Formats: sequence, structure tokens, C-alpha cells
Amino acid sequence: MDAQFAIAIVGGTGNLGTALALRLAAPGVKVIIGSRDAQKAQNVVATLKSKMRAGELVGMTNQEAVKQGEFVLIAVPYDGHEQMVKDLKGQVAGKVIIDAVVPLKKVRPFVPSAGSALQEAQQILGEEAPVIGALHNISAVDLGEVDSPLGDVLVCGDQDDAKQKVMEIIRRIGARPFDGGPSGNAYVVEGLTGVIIHLNRKYKSKHGSIKITGVNA
Amino acid sequence: MDAQFAIAIVGGTGNLGTALALRLAAPGVKVIIGSRDAQKAQNVVATLKSKMRAGELVGMTNQEAVKQGEFVLIAVPYDGHEQMVKDLKGQVAGKVIIDAVVPLKKVRPFVPSAGSALQEAQQILGEEAPVIGALHNISAVDLGEVDSPLGDVLVCGDQDDAKQKVMEIIRRIGARPFDGGPSGNAYVVEGLTGVIIHLNRKYKSKHGSIKITGVNA
Repeated sequence: MDAQFAIAIVGGTGNLGTALALRLAAPGVKVIIGSRDAQKAQNVVATLKSKMRAGELVGMTNQEAVKQGEFVLIAVPYDGHEQMVKDLKGQVAGKVIIDAVVPLKKVRPFVPSAGSALQEAQQILGEEAPVIGALHNISAVDLGEVDSPLGDVLVCGDQDDAKQKVMEIIRRIGARPFDGGPSGNAYVVEGLTGVIIHLNRKYKSKHGSIKITGVNA
Repeated sequence: MDAQFAIAIVGGTGNLGTALALRLAAPGVKVIIGSRDAQKAQNVVATLKSKMRAGELVGMTNQEAVKQGEFVLIAVPYDGHEQMVKDLKGQVAGKVIIDAVVPLKKVRPFVPSAGSALQEAQQILGEEAPVIGALHNISAVDLGEVDSPLGDVLVCGDQDDAKQKVMEIIRRIGARPFDGGPSGNAYVVEGLTGVIIHLNRKYKSKHGSIKITGVNA
């Protein structure tokens, strides 16, 4: 992977997108927050910059953001997932898509008809770009507090080169990536966030996450 | 929960069943290994007894085992799950069913048509007995080595009284139970075993499991 690279976070003005932006921005990594509304993206960037220690962060429309990123991270609520991926189609050849979207009905996980959000995205994009599922299970709260330790990250997908690149990005933000298997395993990793949401509510926490034990990655 | 109680492990002569029997057998807990073949159950018990430190362990037919247990633990491969639950129907009023079955196609997790093994069992049993999902994610290898530390156990189900009782049993075997939510979350916890199987293969381990972090149970 190039020492210098850019990640576009589309629909990146929400909790997860902004928290990821803070973690990802680092020397050699340019983070581009995309939004339907360029002004909104720029406003979010202005707020985030006060919390940043290093790295380059800019805001623009989703379409412009995608042009500049080698990686395109989707961090929208599931309701907006299908449309977002359709908007990407035709714009992302040669890029790697990182899908962090969790299918939820209110607070409960469910299995979408394609099998998972990852598979839904891959069906829409076809051969245009590999879709790798990752970063579902990490608390946005912990991501946003740059000194909080992060949980482990299960990474799913069918294209090994792309998966390895995404695992390298996860190492850069200080989390431990595990190869979680093919796209057919993604429904589990996505759904796990729904179980963690339940745990947070049940046990009154905001920091629920998971660690993999008994395995050396 | 009574200080003295009995757990029937139906289809209990496999790896998971025998490993659970070793952990569950303790002062005040009677473990009954059931099998279609009473002789097979008794042979397994004879072998296990040499490894046991305490507790009562007996072997008999599934049907006889179920009569004697307040808890009925299903630990069969998924292929035998539906038939096993159908065999239980009419025999388990007043008991608590613990379903540890993981839907797998070869080594890959999948979502059965009922939504999960737990929901499949509950649909068959209806109001006769509550079905609680638990103990899916713990390595049979670690269970069988009585001094190995155990991972965390996510417990799913819709009947809170029964769920609390199962969580108490899990504490007795030295694992940490978490309320993993309603039956609708069970597909995640069941599927997680498929992801752990992948991790074990990928990273050459037999001890893969998970820990919940950031939440105090």
C-alpha cells in the first residue's frame, strides 16, 4: 500500500463517519468527508480539526470525495445504504470499498435479502470494485476518544488483496484486524453490532465491543 | 434455582456434549447423557468418569434422560436438530431447553429458514417449554480441558426467568454469561461460531473464542 493514500468517507457526517475520520487522519493519510451537501461536510471538518493531532482532513460532496479516494468507506445508516452504493456505481473502478454499515430495524439486527449489507453492495457494484466489510463493531464513542483502546475488528470479503489493504488500515488506527472470512460471514459481523447495542442498553454502557481470544492474528 | 438439579444432554455423546458434561458435573448437579442408543451413552459415561473430579454422571436413552432433567441441553449437529426437537415435543413441559446448536453448511454459518436454530426449536415446541440459546461459542477443546479458562457466553431468548436460570448454570461452569438479547438475536450468536471456526482454521488454533469488553455484566 502506498505510504500516502486517501480515504473518502461517504455520508461521513454522522457519528461513525466523524469518529472514523478522527482516527484515520494521520501523517500520510488524507481523509475526505463526503456529504450530499458540501457545506455540511466542510462544517463538520471545521469542528473536527480542533480535535485533530495530525493528518489532512477535507470536506466536499460525496461525488468529489470518491474521485479523490483510493478507499471509499460507507458509514451511513442502513436505510441509506442501497442508494449510496447505487450512487457510487460507475465512480469507483480501481478503488476498494469498505462497508461498515449495519442492518438494523430500530435497534435490532436483521438479515437483509441479499444476505448482508456487504453482499448487497457487492451485487450492486458487480466487478467494478471489491467490497470489504469492516469496522462494524467498534463503538463510535471509543473511536471518537482518540486515546481509548479499540476492540478487535473482523474483516470479511471475497477479494484477498483488498482485504489485506483494509486490514492494514485498521492496524493504522490502533485496532487489531482479523480475517473474518468470506462475504458469506458478513451477516454475523454486521449483526454482532446489534447484539453489542443490546449489551450496551442492558448493562448501561457506551463502550461495548469484542475481543477475539485464543487466536494469534 | 434448586441447589440440586439435573441436566439432560440429548444427543450428548459428541464432542460438545461430552465436553459440557465434564464441566457441568459438579456437587449438586446431576448430568445425564442421552443418546438414541443407551449402551453408547453408558460407554461414554464410563470413559468420562475417569476424567471427572466430582458430580454425578449417568447415561441412558434420550427419552429417559429428558424425563429426569429439569434442563434439557441440545448439543447435536444442525442436521439432527429439527428431528431432535420434534422428538422432545410432548416430553418437556415445565423444563427449560438450552439450545447450543449452530447452523453450519460444512464449516460455514448460515441462517436457517426459521431465523435461527433457537427460533426453529421454539416454533416446534410452541408454549410447551422456553428455548434459550447458549454455549455456542465456547471451544469444545477448552471445555474438555477442565482447567482451561472459558470465553464469554452470550445467552439469547424471549423468556427472562428461563434465561436467568441458564445464565446461572453458565456461571457454575466458570464462564461469564451475558444477556445477548431476544430470540431475534440468536442468529448472530449461532453464526459467530462459524466465524470462530474460520478464525481457528485461518490462524491455526483450536481455542478461538470471544470476550465481551466495555460492559460489566
